[in-house]
Amino acid sequence: MSNGTADVREPIYFDELAPGRRFMTQNYALEESEIKTFAAQYDPQPFHVDAEAASHSIFGGLVASGWHTAAITMRLLVTSGLPIAGGMVGLGGEISWPRPTRAADVLHVESEVMAATPSRRQHRGVITLRSKTCTERGEAVQIFTAKLLVPRRPVNDSGSIAS
Amino acid sequence: MSNGTADVREPIYFDELAPGRRFMTQNYALEESEIKTFAAQYDPQPFHVDAEAASHSIFGGLVASGWHTAAITMRLLVTSGLPIAGGMVGLGGEISWPRPTRAADVLHVESEVMAATPSRRQHRGVITLRSKTCTERGEAVQIFTAKLLVPRRPVNDSGSIAS
Repeated sequence: MSNGTADVREPIYFDELAPGRRFMTQNYALEESEIKTFAAQYDPQPFHVDAEAASHSIFGGLVASGWHTAAITMRLLVTSGLPIAGGMVGLGGEISWPRPTRAADVLHVESEVMAATPSRRQHRGVITLRSKTCTERGEAVQIFTAKLLVPRRPVNDSGSIAS
Repeated sequence: MSNGTADVREPIYFDELAPGRRFMTQNYALEESEIKTFAAQYDPQPFHVDAEAASHSIFGGLVASGWHTAAITMRLLVTSGLPIAGGMVGLGGEISWPRPTRAADVLHVESEVMAATPSRRQHRGVITLRSKTCTERGEAVQIFTAKLLVPRRPVNDSGSIAS
């Protein structure tokens, strides 16, 4: 892919993703204009697109759509989180937004492998990955516990673990 | 808000959202260019941004980011789904993508209230809403079971239910 960061990292296989393994992404500085642009297209509610209206909402100010926080989280995971071989393919999971994301928040994602289950189809497995999206103050704005399909390392791979 | 569709609909309160109540949104025609634009910014993986590379992936062709499907689902719910009084405020939920969304899919969302629980704070409650995002062929591409904060109808509201 065109993303330089992802290109240079070694792909990770199921065999290397034991429970307890952790990953941390780079930072993402969120700007008010991006909050409004995303929301105008995908979540056009006053507290996401209009700072004045938002100040009278239950949030007391402009906040990002939860789906915007989710999208930024995905970008961080794809470009600087886990370089899963073949890509990050999510089957689904549980998502929550403990507090809203606001303009000027600088986000990063902390991930931990919670479970790893080999599939009946022997060339892959499913991992449960808990990803916490945090502000620079360490406050969680999203927790996403996902099931991801991950290939096993091919037996004849140059980086064979059978040696 | 600037969204015309939402403006003309009567706001819905907790009191009117009994389990079993259903809602259906309008349609959303997804184009390949939108899939690529969203993914380039938020999910830059080959199977979301490059049709040729995608044809060799496990999807066999270009597919939308799951987060793009989620964002479109939110747009449909906000603009033609449930006009919840004060806006749709999600606490979180369970999301799954039973099959990928592809270019030229025409999506709509079918929602059903699964549970409605009054909060201890008497002016509001929490509903569990199951929203199935479907193609024009009726195939589910996303199922999102969310908990939403919903205000109760104010006692002195002009549309009082005490009459």
